[in-house]
Amino acid sequence: MSRIAYVNGRYVPLRDAAVNVEDRAFQFADGVYEVCEVRGGRLIDEERHVARLRRSLDAIHIPIPMGNEAVGAILREVVRRNRVIDGIVYLQVTRGVAPRNHAFPMKPIRPGIVVTARRVNPAEGERRAADGIAVITLPENRWGRVDIKTVGLLPNVLAKQQARDAGAYEAWFVDRDGLVTEGASTNAWIVTHDGRLVTRQMDHGILGGITRSVLLDMLAADHLTVEQRAFSVDEAMAAAEAFISAASTIVLPVVRIDGRPVGSGKPGPVAKRLRAAFHQHALKAPAWSVHRL
Amino acid sequence: MSRIAYVNGRYVPLRDAAVNVEDRAFQFADGVYEVCEVRGGRLIDEERHVARLRRSLDAIHIPIPMGNEAVGAILREVVRRNRVIDGIVYLQVTRGVAPRNHAFPMKPIRPGIVVTARRVNPAEGERRAADGIAVITLPENRWGRVDIKTVGLLPNVLAKQQARDAGAYEAWFVDRDGLVTEGASTNAWIVTHDGRLVTRQMDHGILGGITRSVLLDMLAADHLTVEQRAFSVDEAMAAAEAFISAASTIVLPVVRIDGRPVGSGKPGPVAKRLRAAFHQHALKAPAWSVHRL
Repeated sequence: MSRIAYVNGRYVPLRDAAVNVEDRAFQFADGVYEVCEVRGGRLIDEERHVARLRRSLDAIHIPIPMGNEAVGAILREVVRRNRVIDGIVYLQVTRGVAPRNHAFPMKPIRPGIVVTARRVNPAEGERRAADGIAVITLPENRWGRVDIKTVGLLPNVLAKQQARDAGAYEAWFVDRDGLVTEGASTNAWIVTHDGRLVTRQMDHGILGGITRSVLLDMLAADHLTVEQRAFSVDEAMAAAEAFISAASTIVLPVVRIDGRPVGSGKPGPVAKRLRAAFHQHALKAPAWSVHRL
Repeated sequence: MSRIAYVNGRYVPLRDAAVNVEDRAFQFADGVYEVCEVRGGRLIDEERHVARLRRSLDAIHIPIPMGNEAVGAILREVVRRNRVIDGIVYLQVTRGVAPRNHAFPMKPIRPGIVVTARRVNPAEGERRAADGIAVITLPENRWGRVDIKTVGLLPNVLAKQQARDAGAYEAWFVDRDGLVTEGASTNAWIVTHDGRLVTRQMDHGILGGITRSVLLDMLAADHLTVEQRAFSVDEAMAAAEAFISAASTIVLPVVRIDGRPVGSGKPGPVAKRLRAAFHQHALKAPAWSVHRL
């Protein structure tokens, strides 16, 4: 089956899905995006993702003449047309097409909207969770507003590639104070030996992950102690556990940092429990349609 | 006349010039670019621009199976087809199209190449030079490798827009030590009261401007004193002159910084002389073809 993309109002085969070369996302990274997990044909945490999209758009002053409901409808339609049961849906909004000039176009232009979806084999994620992953650490070198989910991801691309070259799955950025900010595409967590969960506070230096926010709500509901603060690489290496979170990876235990084992060197019980709890949360996602195959 | 773009081997009308939505420049800012001035139908400093393109490509590991001569031939053909006498030619190279995944595609893919050109009225630049321009200053918030000319330009876009909102032409980024790095799309210079020229040294924190490099060569040939070092906003405000340089603006005198006058508050003699000298340099650009209209 050939994949279908939504591009500016039309559903087209992915191979024909194109944007003009003067789209500002192509020439300036002038756009934002979301990646939402699809499970059993349903969007997980759709409302939170669309709310974050709105926040990103507001932050860089891209107006979209479309309500959250309409955005959700497109996401679901792309999922349906691609017959994705388990996978991800990707949404990108750009400032639009205009003659190249750094500042915003003088006349209002129509923002560009692109949505794609693809299947992901859930068994792969489960295997990765069972094995645990390795991370490397790299100096933080991204811009000052990574809380805005823009497509300006080249530093993340280069970090992910460096991780892969080192046989690792993720790269953690470390600020000039030696403190971990976040991973190239995931948030970073540790579990202390006395059972406290630690993840960096939200500010301009990390992206407010949706899965991170869901986990925080779960932990609060369970009365577990969470400290939203920065931790050092040394603290992570000496921790009982470490893990990462993101919509596309859920919770993945970190078993090695820069080649050295974390805790027992195996996936820890807290990360496992949180992953299982997220699975339960995902089962409760609203069923928005009977999924037609 | 409708404009023509080069896209991956084909010359097409600009309105039809498109790239796939999974082009990595669109989704990750995973691409680099050059802007070259065209004057009298000729490319100014073509060799230096193509050499810098090569450096940017090498820095982020994009291999292009094309020699510098072939790149130059495409630039010139786009200029010719668009009948640009005075204007700019824009070249963008991307890693190519691949299913979305941060790290580089596992299998080699064909890089994408896009070239556009447009006319610019030289009188506009001359008027701007005669009036001088205003700049504002903003905290440096870009990533750590702005020496690579990538399309990850959103911080620059937002800075340019802030400048425009403040009635200024350019924004100067200021690092945490209070020192000017560069403008959002230009290099920054000052002239001290004893006639020394100062512009920031090349490192990872500024782009090595082609016009900057040509000016440095001219100044060296004239035995003028140049200090390649950082300067503060205060030093710039107290300087005899300030100016900016870039391929698209050549030399433009800065007459106001954050609303306060620089020197006499009028374009200074050194900036004027350098602009005139650059015009002379441009006249010597190699004539590569008889320009057919």
